[in-house]
Amino acid sequence: MDVRAAVAHQAGQPLTIETVQLEGPREGEVLVEIKATGICHTDAFTLSGDDPEGLFPAILGHEGAGVVVEVGAGVRSLKPGDHVIPLYVPECRQCNYCTSGKTNLCQAVRETQGAGLMPDGSSRFSLGGKPVLHYMGTSTFANYTVVPEISLAKIREDAPFEKVCYIGCGVTTGIGAVINTAKVEPGANVVVFGLGGIGLNVIQGARLAGADMIVGVDLNESKRALAEKFGMTHFVNPKEVEGDLVPYLVNLTKGGADYSFECIGNVKTMRQALECCHKGWGESIIIGVAGAGQEISTRPFQLVTGRVWRGTAFGGAKGRTQVPQIVDWYMDGKINIDDLITHVMPLDEINTAFDLMHEGKSIRSVVTF
Amino acid sequence: MDVRAAVAHQAGQPLTIETVQLEGPREGEVLVEIKATGICHTDAFTLSGDDPEGLFPAILGHEGAGVVVEVGAGVRSLKPGDHVIPLYVPECRQCNYCTSGKTNLCQAVRETQGAGLMPDGSSRFSLGGKPVLHYMGTSTFANYTVVPEISLAKIREDAPFEKVCYIGCGVTTGIGAVINTAKVEPGANVVVFGLGGIGLNVIQGARLAGADMIVGVDLNESKRALAEKFGMTHFVNPKEVEGDLVPYLVNLTKGGADYSFECIGNVKTMRQALECCHKGWGESIIIGVAGAGQEISTRPFQLVTGRVWRGTAFGGAKGRTQVPQIVDWYMDGKINIDDLITHVMPLDEINTAFDLMHEGKSIRSVVTF
Repeated sequence: MDVRAAVAHQAGQPLTIETVQLEGPREGEVLVEIKATGICHTDAFTLSGDDPEGLFPAILGHEGAGVVVEVGAGVRSLKPGDHVIPLYVPECRQCNYCTSGKTNLCQAVRETQGAGLMPDGSSRFSLGGKPVLHYMGTSTFANYTVVPEISLAKIREDAPFEKVCYIGCGVTTGIGAVINTAKVEPGANVVVFGLGGIGLNVIQGARLAGADMIVGVDLNESKRALAEKFGMTHFVNPKEVEGDLVPYLVNLTKGGADYSFECIGNVKTMRQALECCHKGWGESIIIGVAGAGQEISTRPFQLVTGRVWRGTAFGGAKGRTQVPQIVDWYMDGKINIDDLITHVMPLDEINTAFDLMHEGKSIRSVVTF
Repeated sequence: MDVRAAVAHQAGQPLTIETVQLEGPREGEVLVEIKATGICHTDAFTLSGDDPEGLFPAILGHEGAGVVVEVGAGVRSLKPGDHVIPLYVPECRQCNYCTSGKTNLCQAVRETQGAGLMPDGSSRFSLGGKPVLHYMGTSTFANYTVVPEISLAKIREDAPFEKVCYIGCGVTTGIGAVINTAKVEPGANVVVFGLGGIGLNVIQGARLAGADMIVGVDLNESKRALAEKFGMTHFVNPKEVEGDLVPYLVNLTKGGADYSFECIGNVKTMRQALECCHKGWGESIIIGVAGAGQEISTRPFQLVTGRVWRGTAFGGAKGRTQVPQIVDWYMDGKINIDDLITHVMPLDEINTAFDLMHEGKSIRSVVTF
């Protein structure tokens, strides 16, 4: 079938809106009509060419929501008409990662997904007879896509696509880092580095978990008001701190953060985030993605005296299980997504979404089909 | 009173055996007759002058066992005749560290202990009328010492001093790292870097916890037999591995270590210990103490894909609570200490113990009084 897609032909070039061909779903696969998709920094990172694992030509996009159109042979958990959110971290519930009870990093389709292919090793997309690659197993920058059954979370039908698509990445990453990875408990003190979309979701996750002090750290004063609306209790602008930031934060939190979150992707702030943690038990969670080859460092004394260094991907969430729950939280008014979606546009204007992101003018842009 | 002590007058010089003066216990303090003391790398580190916090003149030693002789005012939990092990990590059960339920790093006497003084800011030891400093709150290289009540674990009276003194540091550090810090569960795969005294105690802790595969990594083939006796199932000599050690260990453990332990104090092996951990959940525990100013590094991707970097001090053990339990384990034959104590000598020969350690000829030397 013909589908409308934003195609990434090569690194560093804008996406081009084209009609590409999409094959129907094979065994274990599902054809989904994408109704809305967010545009995330990870899409921009791959498009820039800085992502060493980026492949072209490809159809990017990994933060979508839509409706099942057709299911392939053997698909049991979904049927046409079901509303779904595609998952770039699948949940097969069979592999030793899924059954470990210790991680969300299902490995069932890792190799083919990383190669831009469906699990059988081929692509469903093509252009002029030549294959176009999938991306993160989702390729939501197209009005139809084919996704493995294990990479789809079934959600309630009254949830608005143009809002809950954001749960496909940013919302779950931020809230999940608090709930699944850090396991923040009521009364904890939390420090959040970076008040972009991920940082704001960490903040509302910390509020949801009952944190006492929620400190936001950002160089940009204009982030303050919205962060406060999401639950931030203290704002720190490092430019306005005399002396070192770390002792300032330790003092502010009366001994250090119980949990800190790095939502920037900067290895220097990753170190600060660790070192501002409370001696004896503070845990720092890396969410941001650093540039290729960059390294974090610290003195081992920081760990020997009880701090813990962790990271998280997709907020430690098992998508088929937890994404529907987070959709419920949105529908019940427990979390705020509306204020994070600052721009909505048609597919034709998707390059504008990248511009707005690079200029720092958007929190999240969403394309609706 | 006059006591016989090994005095560290200055960095880099041998200890001198002298008669020093010891005042009786003040409020909250206890006079202990030391019956036996181990000689640990930490004593050697401080004596070498490499420890930036080392102070002189001082009476070193932090791995002792003895008998209560006299208690100061207000001491309720101990009486003359009680058998005790001094604790360089106290357990006051009152400070917010003790009550957090998250750490063993009681801070009740931290500042004075770090300054070589008793909690009231003075020293009980003197020589020719000039104060001699305490060390780690214990100063077990003397036949009598004064220790805060909160820094003494009461133990059973049938336990042999010359064996259970080792529980005052090395045994608890190794076994505790497994049980308290890593919380190794039955069936786990464990990798241990460094098969000295700490590494061997990690190994027997892993066996006690029911680990399946216990891999020991050491450059010295001669460590193999004893490590196997303690529970090591696989020995890896990095000199005999072709190519990189990390992928070799990941392959050997079928995906990586569930838990790894660095018992050397080398920042390069700390990185290897982290990176040989299993994607998704592997946790690496730093036990070894690195040289001043040295830093650990890795790519943040290692953490984002689920590895966790921790450290531990005194095995995460709360001494007054857990040391008596570990003494019971020794008396019940659940753990082996006898094979780790390779040399026993009188105080006059304590410098020989340091020589044996530096020459790699001892696992643990013990001085008996």
